Amino acid sequence: MTAPDGFALNQQTVRQWSLPELVSGCVEAGVRSVGLWREPVRAYGPAAAARLLRAAGLGVSSLCRGGFLTAPGPVARTEALAGNRAAVDEAAVLGADTLVLVSGGLPPGSRDLAGARERVADALAELGPYAAACGVRLAVEPLHPMYASDRCVVSTLRQALDLAERFPAEQVGVVVDTYHLWWDDTVAGELERAGRGGRIAAFQLADWVTPLPEGVLLGRGQLGDGCVDLRWFHERVRAAGFTGPAEVEIFSERLWRRAGAEVLAEVLERYRAHVL
Amino acid sequence: MTAPDGFALNQQTVRQWSLPELVSGCVEAGVRSVGLWREPVRAYGPAAAARLLRAAGLGVSSLCRGGFLTAPGPVARTEALAGNRAAVDEAAVLGADTLVLVSGGLPPGSRDLAGARERVADALAELGPYAAACGVRLAVEPLHPMYASDRCVVSTLRQALDLAERFPAEQVGVVVDTYHLWWDDTVAGELERAGRGGRIAAFQLADWVTPLPEGVLLGRGQLGDGCVDLRWFHERVRAAGFTGPAEVEIFSERLWRRAGAEVLAEVLERYRAHVL
Repeated sequence: MTAPDGFALNQQTVRQWSLPELVSGCVEAGVRSVGLWREPVRAYGPAAAARLLRAAGLGVSSLCRGGFLTAPGPVARTEALAGNRAAVDEAAVLGADTLVLVSGGLPPGSRDLAGARERVADALAELGPYAAACGVRLAVEPLHPMYASDRCVVSTLRQALDLAERFPAEQVGVVVDTYHLWWDDTVAGELERAGRGGRIAAFQLADWVTPLPEGVLLGRGQLGDGCVDLRWFHERVRAAGFTGPAEVEIFSERLWRRAGAEVLAEVLERYRAHVL
Repeated sequence: MTAPDGFALNQQTVRQWSLPELVSGCVEAGVRSVGLWREPVRAYGPAAAARLLRAAGLGVSSLCRGGFLTAPGPVARTEALAGNRAAVDEAAVLGADTLVLVSGGLPPGSRDLAGARERVADALAELGPYAAACGVRLAVEPLHPMYASDRCVVSTLRQALDLAERFPAEQVGVVVDTYHLWWDDTVAGELERAGRGGRIAAFQLADWVTPLPEGVLLGRGQLGDGCVDLRWFHERVRAAGFTGPAEVEIFSERLWRRAGAEVLAEVLERYRAHVL
């Protein structure tokens, strides 16, 4: 069995797998690229993880995630910048050219979304040159507006591009994630804009299903189970010139309760049926 | 005690109250206007409810809600239109000049948001003249994008205005609800647009708090408990020329467990502190 060209599996989709299980499971399924998360990579050791991946011939489509750049005050800011430089270093060790950034939410007691977004811009100005020097591009991910207060003050692709375009394209790009953007009728135009500027750094896929669970974090849908026109997104992202892998990233307690190999096989089947 | 001028209490904020309790509780607190819901009004009888309200000197800021206009097929469409004409009739009996419309979500199995929005437009074309002839304005309510699939395909004030502006302003307006719109950085411009066109038909207030509960319906925040800049919204809506009451509408299981009079007193205190 060989996964389609241009497919990547994000590690969170099969969180039940250890890193070595992920690597062997992907090799067995013919997957050639994976999206990784910092916590399991650091637990395994970034250099050891890089060796493991390289020996298996696996590429790294993205490292998730840096960000959380909205806290005010010099101490919090210094800490956030240091943490993000470490994330850039880890991406470089892994050979990942994209570090996904989730901006962060409103600080406690704040109602100032615009101010929080400006702090993200300030941080990108500091981190962008460092990342580019390491061969890593920062990728600003707009998250669904239901996360605007507690997780990510950047809610639309337009906002993400407004931020990214203040910086050189080789320093700052954007993430296009179907789960976060599917509802927005301005997204077609913004995908064209992102393509013209060479700003699409990563493309992630999950479906939207309801009811949403408490906390709205772990209820993403398997491809085809929800209402997102995944094929439309894939075609538009490709038409916009993005040549990297389409990464399936599904946070779902349902999928995590099943065997990883079974989940991956189903993801590949659904990908063929609903994306290609 | 007298509630501030321009304040209205939506019935759902104190769902623990019967309609007579709502009326006497509002009179006692000096509230002069209420937003009503169809189900309790129909259970009491619209004409009897109208007499009760009139005897107490209470105005009706809005009737919630008609809508759910996205189902395809002639049978479902005929039923939806008939249900909405009945809702217009009830609003007229109550003396409410505004009927709030929640558009409806995607039909089962559909991924066609644009098509669903067009069916809403088609229905507005049928219902608008009927409503205006009854002295009632249809008010399209954009709901937060987290409801786009199962409840309301109109997610932003821009989309609501794009729909409303296809029709005369006396037939179709929009609802501005802070809970649904707070995250959107285009809302300031859209409020100005809505004001220029005389399109703001209702203004509703609730705060945004997290974590969201399962199903994301009943977790709205008491004024001041969350991150919405309520005063900013109130100022903008007033600057846009809206002269109707600001209606506090909080769906919250926490508030429903308390005594209605205590909730209303707290709402008024918070309204003075965070809105005025």
